[in-house]
Amino acid sequence: MSSRTVIRGGLVITASDEIHADVLIEDGRIAALAASGTPAAGAFTADREIDATGKYVIPGGVDGHTHMQMPFGGTTAADTFETGTRAAAWGGTTTIVDFAIQSVGHTLREGLDAWHAKAEGNCAIDYAFHMIVSDVNPGTLKEMDLLVEEGVTSFKQFMAYPGVFYSDDGQILRAMQRAAGNGGLIMMHAENGIAIDVLVEQALARGETDPRHHGEVRKALLEAEATHRAIRLAQVAGAPLYVVHVSAQEAVAELVRARDEGLNVFGETCPQYLFLSTDNLAEPDFEGAKYVCSTPLRPREHQARLWQGLRTNDLQVVSTDHCPFCFTGQKELGRGDFSRIPNGLPGVENRMDLLHQAVVDGHISRRRWIEVACATPARMFGLYPKKGTITPGADADVVIYDPHAEQVMSAATHHMNVDYSAYEGKHVTGRVETVLSRGELVIDRREYTGHAGHGVYTPRSTCQYLN
Amino acid sequence: MSSRTVIRGGLVITASDEIHADVLIEDGRIAALAASGTPAAGAFTADREIDATGKYVIPGGVDGHTHMQMPFGGTTAADTFETGTRAAAWGGTTTIVDFAIQSVGHTLREGLDAWHAKAEGNCAIDYAFHMIVSDVNPGTLKEMDLLVEEGVTSFKQFMAYPGVFYSDDGQILRAMQRAAGNGGLIMMHAENGIAIDVLVEQALARGETDPRHHGEVRKALLEAEATHRAIRLAQVAGAPLYVVHVSAQEAVAELVRARDEGLNVFGETCPQYLFLSTDNLAEPDFEGAKYVCSTPLRPREHQARLWQGLRTNDLQVVSTDHCPFCFTGQKELGRGDFSRIPNGLPGVENRMDLLHQAVVDGHISRRRWIEVACATPARMFGLYPKKGTITPGADADVVIYDPHAEQVMSAATHHMNVDYSAYEGKHVTGRVETVLSRGELVIDRREYTGHAGHGVYTPRSTCQYLN
Amino acid sequence: MSSRTVIRGGLVITASDEIHADVLIEDGRIAALAASGTPAAGAFTADREIDATGKYVIPGGVDGHTHMQMPFGGTTAADTFETGTRAAAWGGTTTIVDFAIQSVGHTLREGLDAWHAKAEGNCAIDYAFHMIVSDVNPGTLKEMDLLVEEGVTSFKQFMAYPGVFYSDDGQILRAMQRAAGNGGLIMMHAENGIAIDVLVEQALARGETDPRHHGEVRKALLEAEATHRAIRLAQVAGAPLYVVHVSAQEAVAELVRARDEGLNVFGETCPQYLFLSTDNLAEPDFEGAKYVCSTPLRPREHQARLWQGLRTNDLQVVSTDHCPFCFTGQKELGRGDFSRIPNGLPGVENRMDLLHQAVVDGHISRRRWIEVACATPARMFGLYPKKGTITPGADADVVIYDPHAEQVMSAATHHMNVDYSAYEGKHVTGRVETVLSRGELVIDRREYTGHAGHGVYTPRSTCQYLN
Amino acid sequence: MSSRTVIRGGLVITASDEIHADVLIEDGRIAALAASGTPAAGAFTADREIDATGKYVIPGGVDGHTHMQMPFGGTTAADTFETGTRAAAWGGTTTIVDFAIQSVGHTLREGLDAWHAKAEGNCAIDYAFHMIVSDVNPGTLKEMDLLVEEGVTSFKQFMAYPGVFYSDDGQILRAMQRAAGNGGLIMMHAENGIAIDVLVEQALARGETDPRHHGEVRKALLEAEATHRAIRLAQVAGAPLYVVHVSAQEAVAELVRARDEGLNVFGETCPQYLFLSTDNLAEPDFEGAKYVCSTPLRPREHQARLWQGLRTNDLQVVSTDHCPFCFTGQKELGRGDFSRIPNGLPGVENRMDLLHQAVVDGHISRRRWIEVACATPARMFGLYPKKGTITPGADADVVIYDPHAEQVMSAATHHMNVDYSAYEGKHVTGRVETVLSRGELVIDRREYTGHAGHGVYTPRSTCQYLN
Repeated sequence: MSSRTVIRGGLVITASDEIHADVLIEDGRIAALAASGTPAAGAFTADREIDATGKYVIPGGVDGHTHMQMPFGGTTAADTFETGTRAAAWGGTTTIVDFAIQSVGHTLREGLDAWHAKAEGNCAIDYAFHMIVSDVNPGTLKEMDLLVEEGVTSFKQFMAYPGVFYSDDGQILRAMQRAAGNGGLIMMHAENGIAIDVLVEQALARGETDPRHHGEVRKALLEAEATHRAIRLAQVAGAPLYVVHVSAQEAVAELVRARDEGLNVFGETCPQYLFLSTDNLAEPDFEGAKYVCSTPLRPREHQARLWQGLRTNDLQVVSTDHCPFCFTGQKELGRGDFSRIPNGLPGVENRMDLLHQAVVDGHISRRRWIEVACATPARMFGLYPKKGTITPGADADVVIYDPHAEQVMSAATHHMNVDYSAYEGKHVTGRVETVLSRGELVIDRREYTGHAGHGVYTPRSTCQYLN
Repeated sequence: MSSRTVIRGGLVITASDEIHADVLIEDGRIAALAASGTPAAGAFTADREIDATGKYVIPGGVDGHTHMQMPFGGTTAADTFETGTRAAAWGGTTTIVDFAIQSVGHTLREGLDAWHAKAEGNCAIDYAFHMIVSDVNPGTLKEMDLLVEEGVTSFKQFMAYPGVFYSDDGQILRAMQRAAGNGGLIMMHAENGIAIDVLVEQALARGETDPRHHGEVRKALLEAEATHRAIRLAQVAGAPLYVVHVSAQEAVAELVRARDEGLNVFGETCPQYLFLSTDNLAEPDFEGAKYVCSTPLRPREHQARLWQGLRTNDLQVVSTDHCPFCFTGQKELGRGDFSRIPNGLPGVENRMDLLHQAVVDGHISRRRWIEVACATPARMFGLYPKKGTITPGADADVVIYDPHAEQVMSAATHHMNVDYSAYEGKHVTGRVETVLSRGELVIDRREYTGHAGHGVYTPRSTCQYLN
Repeated sequence: MSSRTVIRGGLVITASDEIHADVLIEDGRIAALAASGTPAAGAFTADREIDATGKYVIPGGVDGHTHMQMPFGGTTAADTFETGTRAAAWGGTTTIVDFAIQSVGHTLREGLDAWHAKAEGNCAIDYAFHMIVSDVNPGTLKEMDLLVEEGVTSFKQFMAYPGVFYSDDGQILRAMQRAAGNGGLIMMHAENGIAIDVLVEQALARGETDPRHHGEVRKALLEAEATHRAIRLAQVAGAPLYVVHVSAQEAVAELVRARDEGLNVFGETCPQYLFLSTDNLAEPDFEGAKYVCSTPLRPREHQARLWQGLRTNDLQVVSTDHCPFCFTGQKELGRGDFSRIPNGLPGVENRMDLLHQAVVDGHISRRRWIEVACATPARMFGLYPKKGTITPGADADVVIYDPHAEQVMSAATHHMNVDYSAYEGKHVTGRVETVLSRGELVIDRREYTGHAGHGVYTPRSTCQYLN
Repeated sequence: MSSRTVIRGGLVITASDEIHADVLIEDGRIAALAASGTPAAGAFTADREIDATGKYVIPGGVDGHTHMQMPFGGTTAADTFETGTRAAAWGGTTTIVDFAIQSVGHTLREGLDAWHAKAEGNCAIDYAFHMIVSDVNPGTLKEMDLLVEEGVTSFKQFMAYPGVFYSDDGQILRAMQRAAGNGGLIMMHAENGIAIDVLVEQALARGETDPRHHGEVRKALLEAEATHRAIRLAQVAGAPLYVVHVSAQEAVAELVRARDEGLNVFGETCPQYLFLSTDNLAEPDFEGAKYVCSTPLRPREHQARLWQGLRTNDLQVVSTDHCPFCFTGQKELGRGDFSRIPNGLPGVENRMDLLHQAVVDGHISRRRWIEVACATPARMFGLYPKKGTITPGADADVVIYDPHAEQVMSAATHHMNVDYSAYEGKHVTGRVETVLSRGELVIDRREYTGHAGHGVYTPRSTCQYLN
């Protein structure tokens, strides 16, 4: 039986267009768009009609960087796939790409299976996986080919965290060479962790144990250095590169240089780098721990460079790196030693709103909002045009967004399973009103109507941005 | 009476999407798109049905730079608005933006009126006007405001051709300041004409009179210099800048630098710079005169930088600078003195095909083809989303393009009113099959079904690309 | 009759060495150096012995940019060759290169003759001439060759002051081409005067008449633009270029870029840009007029970039652009209209001391002090090794400098013929004690023992810095 | 007893001056210089008089990078301190700075003692030591302070050769921090050896065993990457950096960028990179092995960038990296596996002549020849003004150089203990005629008059080039 929904009268905004159009949904997909008020639109018939007059009709957000229930430093990120994807939906995000983790000594397959087990049947919205490769060896290199074929087409490596996720430059080069051959995309945590760990040790030895020292030892220059190194290794391998969570203006400069050279190099930043700063890390009473993540927050003046990078397309994607740890009991593990604070911030629910606020503030245009939050991550990670846009044939992942509603961000009202908000008390204009995932109402006029298990695993094709 | 057309089964390609969709046209506009084969598509009814199976369905081309029947050097460009727009239609272009010219001592209004008179009732496709400002003074500055209001929103100035079109840096600065206030866009012919004219004089004095010397004296460094100067003047004025017909790699480098700084600086190149070179200027028996235009053709190695610029979006638009002069009787005016060769090349009919060939050759993607040839010029010059895309509400300017057809470019078969082709004998893959302008068939399966006067003047809003 | 002087026991500092040596002077030249205390030094016999124990023995300063008794804006610079060169000697400078001026409609020769007439018999120290070329035409181009042959080997052109000194880009290119052939060096006043004059007119129309507006309208970007333009014109001509009075960090960036490309491009800055800023231009009660010069003083933050440029050799020379106008009666001409304030500052007496203060402050090393103030200007303008160093065969232009003396700069104590000091009240460490010009004592332990007419005209060879 | 020598009538060339002067030597030092033909010069009396009419009188060369009798890859460099320093003297070099090596598990002191033992009593000319730090740990860091105090003021680390000399980025950072404190200079072998070793393994696995593959796997981009990384680590540490044997144009670009930023970053290149190329590595019959060194020879087009870098002072020093292995019995160890070819080339005897040839060829000026080969290495490594110049007080290390003599380089005539010449058959203009080391004749009109043991160990002060 065919179910049909029509969304009438809204301003449909995609990465490329802003049009007044009615959107017809059939069987979970966008079937048609027609200019509002035309005979063609009038001819749309549906079981359900949603009035979007005065609202935006936008593609559901695609968050290309989340870590649900991820083990880290002896504890586990507080959002499960169930709570995290529900919160995502509340925030207007209808697809996440989470990171399955290979542990050293195990296969990629084992890691991927474990993450499938965590997610399956629990998600409110669709999900896909990147693969963290902790251990490059002949076996895992071969597994990469298989994973690309089955829809896990991107592989994250770390230039930081020696002994845990760290890959040396030889391992990185090998993985990049493999990706050059199989179409995979290498995602890089670009910080010179070997050098940083020296600075961490020295800081602790000097008694510098507060959270703000986390920001001081993880120097911008060492993010920029690693970014440059990853770029050159990728160039040697002939492979594309996607640098995650870019926070330092010096790192942006390296991306600019590479892109000016015509290289397939991409950069992601996150709301926390655009809206927060080392001022937050310096909050007293260990409150700074709430803002401990890596790459770290930077001094406020870096923000302008990041916004500019988003405008000039030197940064292409805004993801969350959502990885929440409760202040009580989790962040507190690092009292007296900033290096033991679990790294990560909550944000999956806040991203679309914060970026709309950036539209209101004049940092980016409306279309660029949709581009960096929906279309480009979908295209980057091989989910386009299924996800990330509103066009005939696409999945009917649609958000009705009220651009005039006012809200105050707060742990008291958010839906993420974490006891604080990184944006507590922040006023923003704009709010998600209704969310459809493949045509089903997940949020209906600010009520949650979804359920765990609606979301399905979504295999991906390869990166669509390569020159 | 409502006329309805449906185009079925093609691959609809826009700057952002490639989808299999049926396109419904009502009353000259795109009314709806539906995924081919869905009930929604099946519900489309129409008076006329066009089968596009196996073809591309693309927006009509927007050529942002033409000079129909333009007076130059004692002669007049050979294509009238009638012949030129008909040829444009044959080549899949459905909108041109031509340049009205103010003569020194006259008002902008007089120039604009004259161009309206030339075009009105004669065009096969829609047209709009830029305004060439030859004489900046208090009166013309005020006129700029009025022109922006009535839809002439871009103003071209020349850093070359002293005594004719040339503006000095003070005049340029004043015009840019005015544009910063009224939303206009300054388009710049960026060559240091004062310095070039010294080199011209010296070359002629040395007896270097052949067409190839035209390319030697108009040095790449002097294009780059002027490009940089225009950028800095625009920066002082707080105005955006659009540099026309960029040909030198050194000029691209200046654009890259400015764009990396986040400035609203844009660059256009033309097919002749992408496909031709100083080798052509050096053709014997004065044949090089066919390729004389300014900025001049560059050595072959510049082409790679231009292609890269198009890929990295450091160049945004490909226009033609169509300004044809017959070899016999016109180009020949410059025998014995290259500086008297009328400057300009035919190309309005060739652009879409040459750029499709670039897709075939791997220089750009299909979506980028549509972006640089249709969507971006439309957006840059305030014609979007009326022109440049296929989306509900847009004008039904649509081309059915056969990507597999083979053709050989030749003066024997082209429709431009000029006695040679700049691409004589060039084989390309892909050909326009059918062209609709506001829903009317102008080219129907390789027959011309349009007529002079179908095309209407189209006022423009302001540039949509400003950060 | 042979006169012999020996200077014993000082620290001889040149651009390359710091050695404890005795200096033997015979017949106005450095005859020999010997390590102090050695038998070789002991063997030096002399008529006169100067004890330099605890002092520096340095080459006399070479000020490559002065304007003695120059007509400007209806008045004349207040220092004559007599007063100005005497003040120079007091400040440890033993050679100036002043600017002879061609007036439009007159020959270079006429201008040069006029300046010879002003200087001859009046100077306390040696002098040479650059030639300001106000009017490039076939006659003056030919004269350039003759002047190079007779020792006027550098030619200044202006991209500012239209109607007075201004040359257009064609005139500049022609002069540069000539210089490329005859070994001359083009010196450039690099400001886009055409654009600046628009901003001046607009500022005055808005009632912005105070001296500080002088600094606002002469924008850093328009200095940088002109610098870049001059560089590219020189590149086209195949000629070297020397940019005078660089003040803006953006202009330094252009020099850096050109030098990284390996071009023969040089930059001079002046003490006023290193020690003063727009804060001075904003001094109340029209006092800002004292600091009006072009290029103008810049905001304080530009100073760091200039110092860095001096350290990295992207700037090579510090000259004064000495061109003093009394506050009373001269600077006052511009009350109510900053554009009528005579442009120029006094400084010929202060340069060596201010730069020694820079040594004390850690901006540059002692050897770099001598390099930028003595050796490089001498080499740049073809006076080396006659001037600018202490080596056998060089002219015995020697300064005994007390590095520990303290002084306060003031119009009350300076010897320049001007009623104010640009550095009034500034404390500096270090002072000239004794000055020899070709072996003659001009300043003897802080007494003036020289006389007008001692200084002779010194023809120059061509620039010695070309790659 | 005082011995006195006078060198008359030559052209004395230093980094800064070219003067016709007589040079008086007393007790092994330069006592005085006097302009030739003056009474002061006439007054010089001496035991020995050397006629240098028509010749150059230049400072003895300072070769800052040699490896005499160094163990490498199971064999030992063929020149002992005795044969190597004798050959150096033949080539006009009067000081070498060789590399003492710390082996992993041993102290710096042990390494230094071993090298002292090898050199003492065996050298024909003066020598000093750098220290290779193979193992950064708390003990060696403390030893660095002691070594700086006793005159070993520079420390080399390797980003290549894992398991042998390799330091990771943490060890490098720690050593740099130490150097920032104690005034030491870190010298870096900048190649990403971790990545290169992957490429080596892959090449060998593909059967690519010839010497030319050595050049292919050690990619220019991986030299540039490591250069950039070392620069950023030094910036974090606040330490200066000296990059040894720069060969790739991309690495030069990194140095340029750092120096434009005002960092204390220095670069050395070697004659082999200026005169040889991958063409030599590709010589048949395993002859390419003669040219195997690391960084490797690059394609010929890199040479122009190196020459430009020497002219613009982005490269400051030309050393030899002299490390000769005989073709027979040593280079042959790598037949069938290029990675087993001992790395290194002979050159200590050829450097001064090759660089004079560069003067003849117009690449650099005469003064720049002396600067890059004598003065700057002396200054860089704390030997100035004792070494590297001719000035009163300096050691009398002087070369009488015949600029017009012709010679052909050949293993048949050279004095290095190695069975081939890297420049076999090369004609050069200019030849060493006479060499004095601290006033003693070592080469007297092309006869060796020196002896092992004349040369003494020379402790060094710290780098004199820091901003």
